[in-house]
Amino acid sequence: MFIEHNAEIVDFLQTASEVVKLSYFCHSFNPIMKNILVIGAGRSSIYLIEYLLNNSTEHNWKITVGDVDEASAKLKTAGHVNAKAIAFDINNAAQREEEIKKSDIVISMLPAFMHGEVAKDCVRLGKNMATASYVSDLMKELDSAAKQKGIILMNEIGLDPGIDHASALKVIHEIQEKGGDVHTFKSFCGGLVAPESNDNPWGYKFSWNPRNVILAGQGTAQFLENGKIKFIPYNRIYTQTETIEVDGYGKFDAYANRDSIGYKDVYGLQSIKTMLRGTLRMPGYCIAWDAFVKLGLTDDSWKIHGSENMNWAQLIDALLPEGTGDLEERMKNFLGKNALLEVMDKLKWLGIYDASPITLKDATPAQILQSLLEKKWLLKAEDKDMIVMQHYFGYTLNGKEKAIVSELVVKGESSSHTAMAKTVGLPLAITVKNILTGKIKLTGVQMPTVKEIYEPLLAELEQVDIVFKEKELV
Amino acid sequence: MFIEHNAEIVDFLQTASEVVKLSYFCHSFNPIMKNILVIGAGRSSIYLIEYLLNNSTEHNWKITVGDVDEASAKLKTAGHVNAKAIAFDINNAAQREEEIKKSDIVISMLPAFMHGEVAKDCVRLGKNMATASYVSDLMKELDSAAKQKGIILMNEIGLDPGIDHASALKVIHEIQEKGGDVHTFKSFCGGLVAPESNDNPWGYKFSWNPRNVILAGQGTAQFLENGKIKFIPYNRIYTQTETIEVDGYGKFDAYANRDSIGYKDVYGLQSIKTMLRGTLRMPGYCIAWDAFVKLGLTDDSWKIHGSENMNWAQLIDALLPEGTGDLEERMKNFLGKNALLEVMDKLKWLGIYDASPITLKDATPAQILQSLLEKKWLLKAEDKDMIVMQHYFGYTLNGKEKAIVSELVVKGESSSHTAMAKTVGLPLAITVKNILTGKIKLTGVQMPTVKEIYEPLLAELEQVDIVFKEKELV
Repeated sequence: MFIEHNAEIVDFLQTASEVVKLSYFCHSFNPIMKNILVIGAGRSSIYLIEYLLNNSTEHNWKITVGDVDEASAKLKTAGHVNAKAIAFDINNAAQREEEIKKSDIVISMLPAFMHGEVAKDCVRLGKNMATASYVSDLMKELDSAAKQKGIILMNEIGLDPGIDHASALKVIHEIQEKGGDVHTFKSFCGGLVAPESNDNPWGYKFSWNPRNVILAGQGTAQFLENGKIKFIPYNRIYTQTETIEVDGYGKFDAYANRDSIGYKDVYGLQSIKTMLRGTLRMPGYCIAWDAFVKLGLTDDSWKIHGSENMNWAQLIDALLPEGTGDLEERMKNFLGKNALLEVMDKLKWLGIYDASPITLKDATPAQILQSLLEKKWLLKAEDKDMIVMQHYFGYTLNGKEKAIVSELVVKGESSSHTAMAKTVGLPLAITVKNILTGKIKLTGVQMPTVKEIYEPLLAELEQVDIVFKEKELV
Repeated sequence: MFIEHNAEIVDFLQTASEVVKLSYFCHSFNPIMKNILVIGAGRSSIYLIEYLLNNSTEHNWKITVGDVDEASAKLKTAGHVNAKAIAFDINNAAQREEEIKKSDIVISMLPAFMHGEVAKDCVRLGKNMATASYVSDLMKELDSAAKQKGIILMNEIGLDPGIDHASALKVIHEIQEKGGDVHTFKSFCGGLVAPESNDNPWGYKFSWNPRNVILAGQGTAQFLENGKIKFIPYNRIYTQTETIEVDGYGKFDAYANRDSIGYKDVYGLQSIKTMLRGTLRMPGYCIAWDAFVKLGLTDDSWKIHGSENMNWAQLIDALLPEGTGDLEERMKNFLGKNALLEVMDKLKWLGIYDASPITLKDATPAQILQSLLEKKWLLKAEDKDMIVMQHYFGYTLNGKEKAIVSELVVKGESSSHTAMAKTVGLPLAITVKNILTGKIKLTGVQMPTVKEIYEPLLAELEQVDIVFKEKELV
């Protein structure tokens, strides 16, 4: 006989009975369990995953976080009871299908060009999807198929693109509801370093993908200015800048983003006269960065054969025209009227005239510059980054000229809990919640340009101090 | 009975007998018949085809000229008894195979990127091939297979590349044979307009593919200067120029070609200190062309949506920064210190400030610029073009500094019989003859850098007044 410890058994049975009852109780009130698949557990997924985990019990979510690097996924899920970390290879079609099949919504944190395969699987398998990336042509093509399946392909739901659309459309719709006519929209955003952590002459540290910073501005910027189309090619994108002032944070350099004109239709402002989206940097950054553009150091289109045998001084020597004097003097002559003291200081501070070795083999100039800047512009553990966004709305109302400015500043907590990760991750997480809870019922390819999406998003962001300050100028 | 006119029959039989005898006589002395396939009958094939036709009876050649445009092929063959003009589609693998199979040598006048398929077929079918294009990586890979088949893949046998290699290597080998050590090699070539036909402020008309002129210089130029590697990115290739003087023809602008460093190995000059290949333009061309580069008008990487609804003034307005004054004043401010009177004149002469419509739909800036320049820089029927080439060789001999300059100037006859077509086509034709007659016995991937190829080539070119003038400077 095994029944020897009556008291223990009674205890066990009582406990088990309680568990069963509790389980039944919970189940009867809990929503139906939903599976969320997060693909990509990189730097900017931390707030996203934390939010999902923190809300998982209340909403009965099971969260699977997949990354090529399983350890990275494990780090983010931190052994949470509702989470599972897996090694995930996006190129493994069988695994992709299996994991997507099990999920109710897929959040792709992959680089933008990788969303396509995921999106196609999601439509085929009838699963919702959300990403913080720009709507690609491929994504657009999936719109009607997604609608037929009754699923949403939620795009551009991070910071920029993301919160920018949400906060801008809120103001634009309010102006339109009052009967106003928006003729000017200028919007700027920058992922910067907070003043208290700004200890280098560039006023910049990497809070996101360094490669994107190095290659930023390549192509041709297109925007509308006073009813005219304007183009700025890459060779002068960092000189044809404007200065933006943000309340309490002073001045910033702003350079134009690649395509602002396409937003006419996206924002429903077909007759707008001025439409410009741009990127913010600390004042003085752009004119100094232009030196790299002119030197050819941001070029990613060709490889320097034998770069591993060169040092920085040799590289700068190769890129500068011949002339008298040392490298710094030649740089000064090369930059001409742009050779301001502050520009020369910024360049020197990076050590580009030093004989420090370039260890990258057969690398592009852009890769070589990136490897230097990754050391020099490292966001230290205690460093705080800072997101700055500003919209300007010019409009006429009852025959009068009016203007509104809307500003957002968010500071990070540390190099892991950055403002960048927060402002990219939370809009995604909140909107995924709103999709799963049925607050958002839209299907097909969507962006946060419609009230159903941006209204609950902005409301919840305010609760975590991501607040736009709106100000009527006139 | 049919024998009614005896005298006529006797006549006929006598003639027939003579023909048979003559035919037998010819055959016994004539070389074996060879088939030459020329693919591409465009602008620069005229001298090539004429030379082949003129030499066809002597050498017993049958020449097939194939072009997508059969009429173009017919025009070039002009009903010659040894020639056949055919419609030829390079993408038709069956036709390609059939025609190549029938030939002893294939001359590809196709755009460079199309040579690959032809070369692969030639190697597979054991046929010789010749092109005026640069040796591609694909071509290099075919070297050992071509050698196994005992065929030659003759490359870079036009003007530049072509005659440049031949004439340079002749001097280099002569210096080396005397015991000299070449430390400097600078070589420039330009396809220009002859002074007597130069009636526009740019000093330029199109004697070859306009697209190549518009996109010229894109990428990064690499060369050696005083033992150091130098890079010039596209954004300053037309400003970082040098001035070259050619005996009897005055000064020219010279800008660096894409890759000069690779020629160290090709020319067998591994320890050379200065090595630069460049392109010549009339003086003042480069600083004016730089305005197009800075404006973004040479960009072929993006399309202007709705360009068909714009006019030139609007395009220039879109590309110029905003400012006061009319377009010309804004251009002047934009160009700053480069806004020389001669630059402003060149730009105005093109009519870029006029409201003339851009009819190209969704075109790239480069395509739009090309369509304007094709009208403005048209080589008229009676116009003469001009090829200018100059090599500079610096060397030490017995401890002394020495220098040689070698120069070539060739003028065209008309807009169809251009110096460009002549200097591209004749080296190709002559070398094909030398291959077919066994004067060149080399196999595998070849360039005119070896005596067996360049010596008979330069000798025959001299007979048609394509003569390099060599001059010892010191």
